[in-house]
Amino acid sequence: MTASAAKNIVLTDTANNIEISEWSVENRNLDISGAPAFLISKKTLHGGKQEGSTLITVQTDNLKVTLIPTRGMDIYEIVSGDVRLGWDSPVDEIVHPAYMNLEMRGGLGWLDGFNEMMVRCGFEWTGHPGEENGRLMSLHGRAGNTPASKVVVSIDETPPYAIHIKGLIKENTFKFSNLETWTTLTVVPGETTVKVHDELTNLSDYDRDYQIIYHSNFGAPILEQGAKVEVAVKEISPFNDYAVNGLKDWQTYLGPTKNFDEMVFNLVPYADDQGMTTVLLHNRKGDQGVAVKYDTRQLPVLTLWKNTDTVKQGYVTGIEPGTSYAYPRQIEREQGRVKTLAAGATQSFDLEYHVLTNSSAVKHASQEIKKIQGKKDITVISQPMAIE
Amino acid sequence: MTASAAKNIVLTDTANNIEISEWSVENRNLDISGAPAFLISKKTLHGGKQEGSTLITVQTDNLKVTLIPTRGMDIYEIVSGDVRLGWDSPVDEIVHPAYMNLEMRGGLGWLDGFNEMMVRCGFEWTGHPGEENGRLMSLHGRAGNTPASKVVVSIDETPPYAIHIKGLIKENTFKFSNLETWTTLTVVPGETTVKVHDELTNLSDYDRDYQIIYHSNFGAPILEQGAKVEVAVKEISPFNDYAVNGLKDWQTYLGPTKNFDEMVFNLVPYADDQGMTTVLLHNRKGDQGVAVKYDTRQLPVLTLWKNTDTVKQGYVTGIEPGTSYAYPRQIEREQGRVKTLAAGATQSFDLEYHVLTNSSAVKHASQEIKKIQGKKDITVISQPMAIE
Amino acid sequence: MTASAAKNIVLTDTANNIEISEWSVENRNLDISGAPAFLISKKTLHGGKQEGSTLITVQTDNLKVTLIPTRGMDIYEIVSGDVRLGWDSPVDEIVHPAYMNLEMRGGLGWLDGFNEMMVRCGFEWTGHPGEENGRLMSLHGRAGNTPASKVVVSIDETPPYAIHIKGLIKENTFKFSNLETWTTLTVVPGETTVKVHDELTNLSDYDRDYQIIYHSNFGAPILEQGAKVEVAVKEISPFNDYAVNGLKDWQTYLGPTKNFDEMVFNLVPYADDQGMTTVLLHNRKGDQGVAVKYDTRQLPVLTLWKNTDTVKQGYVTGIEPGTSYAYPRQIEREQGRVKTLAAGATQSFDLEYHVLTNSSAVKHASQEIKKIQGKKDITVISQPMAIE
Repeated sequence: MTASAAKNIVLTDTANNIEISEWSVENRNLDISGAPAFLISKKTLHGGKQEGSTLITVQTDNLKVTLIPTRGMDIYEIVSGDVRLGWDSPVDEIVHPAYMNLEMRGGLGWLDGFNEMMVRCGFEWTGHPGEENGRLMSLHGRAGNTPASKVVVSIDETPPYAIHIKGLIKENTFKFSNLETWTTLTVVPGETTVKVHDELTNLSDYDRDYQIIYHSNFGAPILEQGAKVEVAVKEISPFNDYAVNGLKDWQTYLGPTKNFDEMVFNLVPYADDQGMTTVLLHNRKGDQGVAVKYDTRQLPVLTLWKNTDTVKQGYVTGIEPGTSYAYPRQIEREQGRVKTLAAGATQSFDLEYHVLTNSSAVKHASQEIKKIQGKKDITVISQPMAIE
Repeated sequence: MTASAAKNIVLTDTANNIEISEWSVENRNLDISGAPAFLISKKTLHGGKQEGSTLITVQTDNLKVTLIPTRGMDIYEIVSGDVRLGWDSPVDEIVHPAYMNLEMRGGLGWLDGFNEMMVRCGFEWTGHPGEENGRLMSLHGRAGNTPASKVVVSIDETPPYAIHIKGLIKENTFKFSNLETWTTLTVVPGETTVKVHDELTNLSDYDRDYQIIYHSNFGAPILEQGAKVEVAVKEISPFNDYAVNGLKDWQTYLGPTKNFDEMVFNLVPYADDQGMTTVLLHNRKGDQGVAVKYDTRQLPVLTLWKNTDTVKQGYVTGIEPGTSYAYPRQIEREQGRVKTLAAGATQSFDLEYHVLTNSSAVKHASQEIKKIQGKKDITVISQPMAIE
Repeated sequence: MTASAAKNIVLTDTANNIEISEWSVENRNLDISGAPAFLISKKTLHGGKQEGSTLITVQTDNLKVTLIPTRGMDIYEIVSGDVRLGWDSPVDEIVHPAYMNLEMRGGLGWLDGFNEMMVRCGFEWTGHPGEENGRLMSLHGRAGNTPASKVVVSIDETPPYAIHIKGLIKENTFKFSNLETWTTLTVVPGETTVKVHDELTNLSDYDRDYQIIYHSNFGAPILEQGAKVEVAVKEISPFNDYAVNGLKDWQTYLGPTKNFDEMVFNLVPYADDQGMTTVLLHNRKGDQGVAVKYDTRQLPVLTLWKNTDTVKQGYVTGIEPGTSYAYPRQIEREQGRVKTLAAGATQSFDLEYHVLTNSSAVKHASQEIKKIQGKKDITVISQPMAIE
């Protein structure tokens, strides 16, 4: 038996007309007696704008991850012990794409469904709404509101018995787009880390533009007054005029603050020799946090979204590695950040979400970041690089 | 057992993943032996653009009410004896929101599903399409095309054994709206009245604008040549230039009239000491009608929509109590009719639809209206107050 | 028993709340012992953007037709022996209308679902996106993304035991449209022809405009380098400047050609004494093809769409009989091609798709066309008649 031997369960497959509504499996149901305890389940939601939405939950002894196949395999939340990665949006339902109109409110329709811990904003376009060739590119693209065409649960039959949830997201439009993304979320039982590995393929015969922002969002308990974000910074600038005033305090967070709205910063992180960087968000006490590790060669820029308005407004911060900042595509294009994927080519994206449940884990991540930063210069640009 | 003791049946609940497709209960199925006969049922529709729509019907000895949970708890029709409150739209199916695009035709997409006796036009905005801040506000808002997130049938266990159908409508959009409305429709067995009690709550931490029009629509048999509308009028004006010519005849109706299209009048009604007013619509003979009673402190203005075009075109009149007239929101705002709901505040709306099945009932309603009018002045404004 | 006696099976009926998910019947299940073998089946698709889509397949000894009730009774493909009528779009799923937004990309949303052999582009409007009265008319109208309100399978009980699949498509919008189309697809067991008979009725009391293009699309194996289209031509002109250069070679096809994109030609065909014309598409060798026969009195103009780009881009040609060319409605209106259907009137459209599986059949169709052309003049207009 090779390391790649795995139990594969197909939960969705448009090609074979499969959509399993309710399903679950435990480690003991499978012929892998050495594996630690886990439970993987799928359910279909009913009622209101949740009708038809699906959820997959992976639960181990110390981790619970919930993702949403009908919303582009987005991650709804990750929980480990007392730490929840996720947030409480005023959108408190898992909205099914049938109820979405991305083009409403001048292209802000995406906000009707936004409540995930991680949304893929892409891949054909991302960022604030804008027009190119008289066509509206709505906020943050289509992937996050595209139901998966194929979903496969795969469990390695050899230690460490990694669990993989794979989902295929198709952005197919005649003449315009044939981008397909195989998303993989991996959990190793016993670890408090969730790994994301996406492979974006341009199936067309033409080079095509792409943009992606991994919009990763965290509220309480990590986010609170005095919470802090750390990252090795090569360059930082305010997204817009409003953020200029918050530039000096970009690393620390206010508590829920009425009328704060949001401040956004554009960062270029430094990375280690392998191109990897870590962004750490931790609470005031420094004993709970999340480390987002990713490959800066794939995702060169980082948007930091500080939405520390009131709790009911959705008290949340976004750590958003991407190929682009959140400007409309035409601005991203002018400034050279819109990427091209060659005909037939595949681009991978790798991210890890580490749940940090004690001081030691937080300190360790902080040290990693300090090591990457070393004595390298930080360029602080005081004015926005673009005006929307 | 207190008066509030009630049998509660949950038919929809997104929070608990409940959506019951087919269901019914009769009085005799419940442990309330003194109650008169009733039948309450729910069904799910299939095929075409009805796929997934739900209907709840409440039937007593002399009343049958049908409402549509998937369309904002709208009332499809009320029938008592020979009198039907409702109308025959060219849209002859109960369109599911998944098939709606409110923004099509420059914001007139709502017309693809319009056939109810009562549609809630609100609550974030209402009126004809318009733009604010570059964002299209489509015709008559979203509530009427929002599926209920929670539906509860509640039957009082003590006389008069009132039946309540409660539904929760969420207009939640990150950054923009956190308006939730608990709608309650009440029928007392034996009575030919349907009561609506809505509670709109602004769950956000910010004051938010709201607008609402209770778009209540009646065709045959009440509407016919010589049918008449009565209301205590403080002020009346034509909605637009076309209505100027119909101002003098605003109270009477033509039969189905080709090329009539629609005439709309803006009214401010007088009310009694409690702020209540009654609008009466009755047939020519005066032996069938509907009385709409409501609280003018909640709904200060009244739109009268006379759409006496041909039968196939949808021969119908609208009696539309509201906070606003049907002008686009920017006009309503300029003229000071857009209301504000404070953070955390709740605003109630109460309306009653009385089915009048004989001359005596019609006369009684007419007398009520005459009493409210008394000798108070009627201001007739001959020109429209706004131009769209 | 009369010739019209038939077995009728209702698969969808919104009026009676019928939507049968899975169904099939064979000739031997019916009390028509003389009939040749056939199998008619319906299935409902699941997963991704196919969730809820339905397919009906009619299979005889030498023909298999698949149509899509949820997409306006469009024909997905017709297969006879080695010949497949249809094509391979980058849109490789049967997209359910709930996932469509026709207004996206400036009105090009239709391209998200386009992969059929025949799509009805109409009936309220058709053609490239345009605006009239400030309202966007999206690409190719709504019919092709409208689920059927009623579907009836009808099998004649007498020879030749014709099989009819009837579907009702409603384009109903209060104030704007009350166009209903009964589509009928007929297959006679043993024949390799599919007949389409549509009856468009204007149910309103007002004359209403209509437009229709029967967008009929063919790829491999018929389409290949050296494939040829034949039709009796009265007039031909290039759709736009790009097509000017292809005018001289309009009858022949390139193989898959990178950067070819599409060339479109506007044709007026000649017809026979009964108004019928035939368009033949055949492969290079001339032993496989399709003949599209239709009534030019119903469908006076013909769009020829040569989309011989790469295979992955969707290598396909469209033979598109219509009342209009593919210009936006405002241009079609200016040039007098927008038709009017009187109040209450019905307009029929009749087309036949003949699968040609050998040289003899191809030659026969070619002879028919030559006969219609005879020595009649061909007017070649070298410049586009309109600029979009």
